[in-house]
Amino acid sequence: MAGSKFAYVKKFELPDTLLPSTFMVLRLDGHSFHRFSDQHGFVKPNDLRALQLMDHAAKSLMEEYKDIGLAFGESDEYSFLLRKSTALYNRRQAKIVSTLTSLFTSCFVFHWPKYFPDVPLQYPPSFDGRIVLYPSQREVRDYFAWRQADTHINNLYNTAFWALVQQGGKTTTEAHAILRGTVSKDKHEILFSRFEINYDKIDPRYRKGSVFVRVETTPEEPADELSTNTDTASARPVVSEESRRKEEKKKKKVATQIELLHCDIIRDEFWDKYAHLMRD
Amino acid sequence: MAGSKFAYVKKFELPDTLLPSTFMVLRLDGHSFHRFSDQHGFVKPNDLRALQLMDHAAKSLMEEYKDIGLAFGESDEYSFLLRKSTALYNRRQAKIVSTLTSLFTSCFVFHWPKYFPDVPLQYPPSFDGRIVLYPSQREVRDYFAWRQADTHINNLYNTAFWALVQQGGKTTTEAHAILRGTVSKDKHEILFSRFEINYDKIDPRYRKGSVFVRVETTPEEPADELSTNTDTASARPVVSEESRRKEEKKKKKVATQIELLHCDIIRDEFWDKYAHLMRD
Amino acid sequence: MAGSKFAYVKKFELPDTLLPSTFMVLRLDGHSFHRFSDQHGFVKPNDLRALQLMDHAAKSLMEEYKDIGLAFGESDEYSFLLRKSTALYNRRQAKIVSTLTSLFTSCFVFHWPKYFPDVPLQYPPSFDGRIVLYPSQREVRDYFAWRQADTHINNLYNTAFWALVQQGGKTTTEAHAILRGTVSKDKHEILFSRFEINYDKIDPRYRKGSVFVRVETTPEEPADELSTNTDTASARPVVSEESRRKEEKKKKKVATQIELLHCDIIRDEFWDKYAHLMRD
Amino acid sequence: MAGSKFAYVKKFELPDTLLPSTFMVLRLDGHSFHRFSDQHGFVKPNDLRALQLMDHAAKSLMEEYKDIGLAFGESDEYSFLLRKSTALYNRRQAKIVSTLTSLFTSCFVFHWPKYFPDVPLQYPPSFDGRIVLYPSQREVRDYFAWRQADTHINNLYNTAFWALVQQGGKTTTEAHAILRGTVSKDKHEILFSRFEINYDKIDPRYRKGSVFVRVETTPEEPADELSTNTDTASARPVVSEESRRKEEKKKKKVATQIELLHCDIIRDEFWDKYAHLMRD
Repeated sequence: MAGSKFAYVKKFELPDTLLPSTFMVLRLDGHSFHRFSDQHGFVKPNDLRALQLMDHAAKSLMEEYKDIGLAFGESDEYSFLLRKSTALYNRRQAKIVSTLTSLFTSCFVFHWPKYFPDVPLQYPPSFDGRIVLYPSQREVRDYFAWRQADTHINNLYNTAFWALVQQGGKTTTEAHAILRGTVSKDKHEILFSRFEINYDKIDPRYRKGSVFVRVETTPEEPADELSTNTDTASARPVVSEESRRKEEKKKKKVATQIELLHCDIIRDEFWDKYAHLMRD
Repeated sequence: MAGSKFAYVKKFELPDTLLPSTFMVLRLDGHSFHRFSDQHGFVKPNDLRALQLMDHAAKSLMEEYKDIGLAFGESDEYSFLLRKSTALYNRRQAKIVSTLTSLFTSCFVFHWPKYFPDVPLQYPPSFDGRIVLYPSQREVRDYFAWRQADTHINNLYNTAFWALVQQGGKTTTEAHAILRGTVSKDKHEILFSRFEINYDKIDPRYRKGSVFVRVETTPEEPADELSTNTDTASARPVVSEESRRKEEKKKKKVATQIELLHCDIIRDEFWDKYAHLMRD
Repeated sequence: MAGSKFAYVKKFELPDTLLPSTFMVLRLDGHSFHRFSDQHGFVKPNDLRALQLMDHAAKSLMEEYKDIGLAFGESDEYSFLLRKSTALYNRRQAKIVSTLTSLFTSCFVFHWPKYFPDVPLQYPPSFDGRIVLYPSQREVRDYFAWRQADTHINNLYNTAFWALVQQGGKTTTEAHAILRGTVSKDKHEILFSRFEINYDKIDPRYRKGSVFVRVETTPEEPADELSTNTDTASARPVVSEESRRKEEKKKKKVATQIELLHCDIIRDEFWDKYAHLMRD
Repeated sequence: MAGSKFAYVKKFELPDTLLPSTFMVLRLDGHSFHRFSDQHGFVKPNDLRALQLMDHAAKSLMEEYKDIGLAFGESDEYSFLLRKSTALYNRRQAKIVSTLTSLFTSCFVFHWPKYFPDVPLQYPPSFDGRIVLYPSQREVRDYFAWRQADTHINNLYNTAFWALVQQGGKTTTEAHAILRGTVSKDKHEILFSRFEINYDKIDPRYRKGSVFVRVETTPEEPADELSTNTDTASARPVVSEESRRKEEKKKKKVATQIELLHCDIIRDEFWDKYAHLMRD
C-alpha cells in the first residue's frame, strides 16, 4: 500500500488511558471571556441570556453522554461529573477532553441566536477543558463545594461592585477601593444599607449557580425486572468485561431525565437526596 | 476564605507538560461525520462547500495561533504542525488540545452559513483532537506524507466508487464488489475506460488535499535589522528563558501570511521550498 | 556559572506525580530468576533459604519506609501496599519505584550470605518494579487476593510436578504431560494417592506465601493522648497541608512492629482483623 | 480459574511507553550518600576506591545492556545514554528505570569487597534513578556537558575546601567562610599559593569524572559484508518492524568493547571522535 512506509508514524501516538474506577470531572472554561462579554454587551453582574445559553450547552452534553450524572455551572465555566466506571472512549484522556469540549462549544455557537436574537455573534468563541480524577466520593463532593463556594464569593463581590457603579455612581476604581478588605458581612451591609438589596433574595441562579442532575424516571416495568436491577446494583463490583457490558445495556434501558436546579450543593441535603450520583 | 477548606481538590490536577523541543502535530477529526454528511446532503465523493469550510476553520486557527506553521486537511480531518520550540500554554497537553479543537469547532459552526447558505445546520457537529509528538524533521515529513498518501488512496477509491454508482448505475454493493482487490492502476483504468475520467486531471484539491503554509512577507525593514534576525536564527539553540522571550518578540514582529496550496507534500520539492517550516 | 548555559537540559525532566489519595502497590519481580535459581541450586519446588531472604529484604523495606503497611511475597516476587495519603518523595513515580526497588535489591545481595552460607553469589541479581494505583479498598483487597490465588495455583502445580519428578522418577516432560488439563482436585489426588502427600498439611509458607503486616504496639501513654489520637483519625479527611504534617508527626510517634504471617488474605477474616491497613 | 475473578485488577496497570526515536538518559544517584560515605570512612575530597566501584557497576550495566553507548560518572551519580531507537523492554519507563537501577545497585554491593577489602559494608546502600528524554543530539551533548561542568565546579570547591581543612588546619566552618564568594580563579590561587597544589595536575579522574564509551572492535570480516553494514546505516531511517529486527541482529554481531576515559566531553573533539554514539 502506498501509505505503508509512512505508517510507522502512528507509533508515536502513545496511550493516555485514565485510571479505571475513578471519578472524572471535566471542567470547561471560556477562553478570554472577559473580552467576549464586553464585545457582546453582557449585562453586569450577571447576564441571564448568557447563563441560559451555557446551561443549554451543558444539558446537550448530558443528553449526548449518558455517563455524565451531574453538572455545575457558573459564569463562563462548567464542570461535569462522569461516573467512575465510565468506559467512554476507553477512558482515553485526549479523546474525551477534546470531544466533549468541542461539542459544548458547538452547542454554544449553534444555540446563540436563541438567547441573543438581537446580538449577532461577532467572532467564534472558544473554551478550554481539563479532566481531573478523584478517587472517592468525598473529593467529588468537595470539588463541587469548591466551585459553589467560588460562585458565592465571586457573585457577592460582583453584585456589590456593580451596585456601587451602576446605582451608586462610583467609578470602577472607587468601587474596588470601597470593597477592598471587606468580608462577606460587610458586602451584605453595603448592598442593604446603600441600595436596599437583600442579597439573600437575589435569584438563586446567580447565588448558587446551575446544577443539572440526571434522575431516573419511574419506569412502568414489572416488579421482578426492577428487583433484578436492584440486585445487580448491589452486587460485588467485580469488573468483568461481560458483566460490565450487560450492566451497561441495562443502564441504557433505564429512562432518565435531566433536571435543572439552583440549590445548595455544599451541605449534606443535596447529596443525601441524589445519592445515586455517586453510585455506579 | 469560604472556599479554602475545599481548595485541596486542586492538588488532583496533575501536570501534563509535553516534552520540550519536540514537534507537535495536532490532528482533528470530525465526530460521526458519516452521519453528519448524510444529514446535510454532502455531495459525493467530495463536497466543495464542506472542504472550503474546513479550510476556513483551519486558516482561522493559524491566524490565532502563530506557532502553527503548516496545516494539512482532507475530508473531515485536519492536521496542524506547531513549531518545536512553541511555549503555547506552557506546552500543557489538555489545554492545547482542548482549546484548539474548541476554536476549530467554533469556526466551523460560525462560518457554516457562508458555505451552506441554503442548508441550515441541523445539529451541532463536533470534532475530536489529539496531539502527537515527533522528535525530528524526518518524522514530521513522514507524518504529513502519511496523511497525503491516505488522501490519495481514499479519494481514488471514492471517485471510482461514486462514478460507478452515480454514472454507472451500480448499487453501492455492486460498486464495492467491482473495486474489491483492485490496485491503483485498475481504478484509473475503470475511471477512464468507463467514464472518460482522467483521474490526474481532477481538481488537485480533491487529489492532494489542502495545504496551508505560513510564509514571511517581505518586510520593508533596514538591512541591518534583517541580518540580525538571520544571525539569531542560525545561532546555537540554547534555550535560555531570556533569549527565548526576545526571540519570540522578534518573531511576532515578522509579518507572515498564510497561503493555501493543493500540492504534493510527499516529495522533496515542497520541503525544500518551505524549509523554514521545520526551523525554529 | 560554568554550567549555567547547559542547565536548560533540566527542563526536559517532566513531573511524574502520582494521583493523590490513591493506594499505591509496588510489585517487584526477580529478573531472569529461572536462570538465577538454577545457577544457585535452589531446592525445588520451594527453597526455604531463598524465600526467607526475600522476606528479610521485604521487612527491611518496611522498616525503612513507614508508609508501607502490608506486603505479600511468593516465589521471586513481592508486593507492597503504601497508604493512600503517603507523601513519599512527593509521590514522584520514578523516584519511588527506583529507590524502593534499589533498596530491596541491595538488601537481597547484602543478606545473601546469612541464608546461603555455603553458596557464594555468582553474579549480581536484579529485580524490576512497577507501581499500580488503586482508588479503593475493594481493589486493594482484590489485588492481594489475586496474588495469593496465583501462589496457590503455582505452588500446587509445582508441588505435584516436582513430586512426580523427584519421587516418581518421571522426566520433566512426562510430569508436564501428566498434569496437563488437570484441575485442582486432580492434583491433590495425585499427591495423596501416589506420594501420600496431604497438600493441605504442607507448610503454609509455601501454600499461602508470606504476609507482613505493620501493627501498632500498645503504647504506654496517658489515656487522654490516646483518645486525641483516635479523634484525629476519625476526623473529616480534609487534606490541609498543616494538618497532614501534624498528623504525620503523630503517626511517627506511634510505635509499630512488623509481623510475619502465612495466612489466608482472600477471606474477610484477615481484613477485619487488620482493618487499620486500609485506613489512613 | 481460581484467580480469574480478581484478575480485573491488572487493568489498573497503565502503559508508560516512552516516546519512540528519542534519546534516553538514565541518571542514578546515591541515596543519602553523605551519611553512607561518612559511615564507611570515604577519603575526602575523593575516594578512589568508591569511584572505581561506581565505575565497575557502570561498566557491568553497559555489558548487560548493549543499547547503552555512553556513560558518565562523578561522585555518587552516573548517567547512561541509550540509543534513540532502543526497543529495550518496549520502552516501558518503570521497567527500564527500575531494572537498571536495580542491577547497578546489585553490582555495587556485589563488588564492594573488591574495592573495600578492609571495610565491611555496614548496611545496604541504595540509589534512585530517573529517565530523561532528549529529542536531539544537541541536547544530549549539553546534558553531558552539564554534568561535567558540575563535576568541575564541585571538585574544585571540594579540593580547596579539604586542603584548607586537612592541610591548612582550618575548621570546616572556617574553610566554607574562606571560599564563600570566590570564583574559579581564586580557588586555583588558594590551592597553589597556600598548598602548592596545581589543580590542573590533579588526576583527571577527579577533575573530569569517568567516561565510558562503547566502541566497535575491528572485525575480521570480508569487505563486502562490511560495506553492506555501512549501506544499511546510511539508509533512510524508516522504522519498519522487520528491518529494525534485522538491523538489530546485525548490530549484535558487531563486536564492541567498553573503554574508560577521563577526558573532556564538553568540547567538539570528543564528539567528533565518537560520533557513532549519536548515530542509531
